[in-house]
Amino acid sequence: MSASDCRQHCVQVALGPRSYTIRIGRGLLAEAAQHLRAAAPNLSQAALITDRNVEPLYAAPLQKQFQSAGIPTNVLVVEPGEASKTIAVATRLWEALLQDGADRKTVVVAVGGGVVGDLAGFVAAAYARGVRLYQVPTSLLAQVDSSVGGKVGVDLPKAKNMVGAFWQPVGVLIDPATLHTLPEREYISGLAEVVKYGMILDADLLVRLEQQVEAIRRRDEEELAWVVARCCRLKADVVEQDEREETGLRAILNYGHTFAHAFETLTGYSQLLHGEAVAMGMDCAARLAVRLGRLDTETALRQRRLLEALGLPIQPPSLDPEQVLEVMRRDKKASHGRLRFILPDRLGHVELVESVPADEVRVVLRTGNNT
Amino acid sequence: MSASDCRQHCVQVALGPRSYTIRIGRGLLAEAAQHLRAAAPNLSQAALITDRNVEPLYAAPLQKQFQSAGIPTNVLVVEPGEASKTIAVATRLWEALLQDGADRKTVVVAVGGGVVGDLAGFVAAAYARGVRLYQVPTSLLAQVDSSVGGKVGVDLPKAKNMVGAFWQPVGVLIDPATLHTLPEREYISGLAEVVKYGMILDADLLVRLEQQVEAIRRRDEEELAWVVARCCRLKADVVEQDEREETGLRAILNYGHTFAHAFETLTGYSQLLHGEAVAMGMDCAARLAVRLGRLDTETALRQRRLLEALGLPIQPPSLDPEQVLEVMRRDKKASHGRLRFILPDRLGHVELVESVPADEVRVVLRTGNNT
Repeated sequence: MSASDCRQHCVQVALGPRSYTIRIGRGLLAEAAQHLRAAAPNLSQAALITDRNVEPLYAAPLQKQFQSAGIPTNVLVVEPGEASKTIAVATRLWEALLQDGADRKTVVVAVGGGVVGDLAGFVAAAYARGVRLYQVPTSLLAQVDSSVGGKVGVDLPKAKNMVGAFWQPVGVLIDPATLHTLPEREYISGLAEVVKYGMILDADLLVRLEQQVEAIRRRDEEELAWVVARCCRLKADVVEQDEREETGLRAILNYGHTFAHAFETLTGYSQLLHGEAVAMGMDCAARLAVRLGRLDTETALRQRRLLEALGLPIQPPSLDPEQVLEVMRRDKKASHGRLRFILPDRLGHVELVESVPADEVRVVLRTGNNT
Repeated sequence: MSASDCRQHCVQVALGPRSYTIRIGRGLLAEAAQHLRAAAPNLSQAALITDRNVEPLYAAPLQKQFQSAGIPTNVLVVEPGEASKTIAVATRLWEALLQDGADRKTVVVAVGGGVVGDLAGFVAAAYARGVRLYQVPTSLLAQVDSSVGGKVGVDLPKAKNMVGAFWQPVGVLIDPATLHTLPEREYISGLAEVVKYGMILDADLLVRLEQQVEAIRRRDEEELAWVVARCCRLKADVVEQDEREETGLRAILNYGHTFAHAFETLTGYSQLLHGEAVAMGMDCAARLAVRLGRLDTETALRQRRLLEALGLPIQPPSLDPEQVLEVMRRDKKASHGRLRFILPDRLGHVELVESVPADEVRVVLRTGNNT
């Protein structure tokens, strides 16, 4: 299938021999078999990995479609939620693949949100020393973030994403129609990462989000296809330049995340959705940038108004600032215990700021959302 | 350290950005810290992975040496033997690395035989999505085979090496003095892979082995350094052209292995050492090649005489030929259940032969070592 066949949005991720296409458009799910075949020539079979919620909605119909198209297809179902992102669950999936006769020409198809994509991606990366991975993300977070860029992995009990790989998919298929079945809270949570792309890289995107708040909140499929495609392009640009997080460029994607990870860690990953923590983290980061004289107050408030208009929370949970600082210092992105943040200096632009004084962070945490 | 510093044997493995040097020579172990630093600039710490047998002999002295050189070093010890090549053991090692504060600049140093190298390699490939690996192989099998080429992994209960990665080391350090501490049976077993390189790629090597049987059997360090370096060069040539087993070239390294894997599987991996099974498998393969009119009897006998002179067994265990055939058809290198073999056609040259008649294999298995 050539690029000219691309009726809706196509994002090409240029990574040399590992290049691939992200296809985004209404109704694409109904043509998944042909896109899978084009992305994974000579596949022997498909192994769909999904969770119990997504299985009846999308995985079972895809299995039927693939089988009608002559692709032998098994479905492997895990429990929904982060608790499935473990080595134990990955091991059960490897054993199931072996049991189903999966070989080096098998393609693992991840059908679900971020947990399914990360887990299935690692399963694909290590089975038989690596088989092909095809991503069908069905949550907004997975569509704009985790399905793009090749980071896959599982958690250790004491550290998230600590065991994994950089394993690029052979293709990504995104149908915004799948977003209609997302619970409201989860859908809104995903919007935080969308705002993030605008803040770090693309002022025009941020302006469009401000203008289209209403269409986005009612999950207008045309608008979402455009927004998701733009986010995928922005992330692809970063990943193309720093696939393995070596040059530091990829770090800008962590805007808001140093605060967010601390909030998630200290609330035991049960209270906040990831995007909610990121929204709070971005508000903190913007206020920190204002305090450090790197950003004007108006831009910080503008980000806050957009987050709130989209329905996102910006008030962090009530936590001891010293504990938050302690977690930040242990962050795997921290450098020798010094505090580093990705901070905005204007709309659509951020910078890595080293050695931020702890006192400034304390003030930001104490003042909550009163800038 | 430049190539001109290489006092003994250096084998450069050219894999673009993943290129590395294999250093082979007497006394190199005593300079390991400087070689590690040169191969892994900016390392934050070393994590030595070893087994209980090798730990007092080589890992503990290396830890002391590294620490004296200012490299913080932990030693992680596993039980000797294939039973340690599991996801459960890998998981314990990942948790230990996390506990020890291993970060992205940590280098995993594998000190031991093939099991340690495969296990430690997979641990390195997946920890924090991949940290650097340095190989210090101390068995002959690991020195000429498993430490070169980047194949790492662990076993599933029903399939060897089924979970893993292609993960190249940043360097390999081989000191033939370590071979003096190997049990005789294990040392001799490793010689099977050495003969294999001669048969598949290098008639001159085979002639030298014939001439140097006595020096090899008494583990002469000069001779072994030369032989190991030659084997590493031959394997590197193959790996450079087919790093991920995609073109089929790398398959020639499996000479003798289709028979060998069946023998190992049907004897439960407890009776035969890998090299012993490979010696038997090469004798079977040569006899099969003679039966198919692809090889002269004299060359098959010449291989057998060399294997026997080196102390290797060539008589396969007593097994039901139908069971052997069944295992061969399920081999992950088999193609749609057809029997494929790497067979010699002259000294130093092999070819992939497809669709070998089962009856010919039956005859080879029934006649045992009476050509």
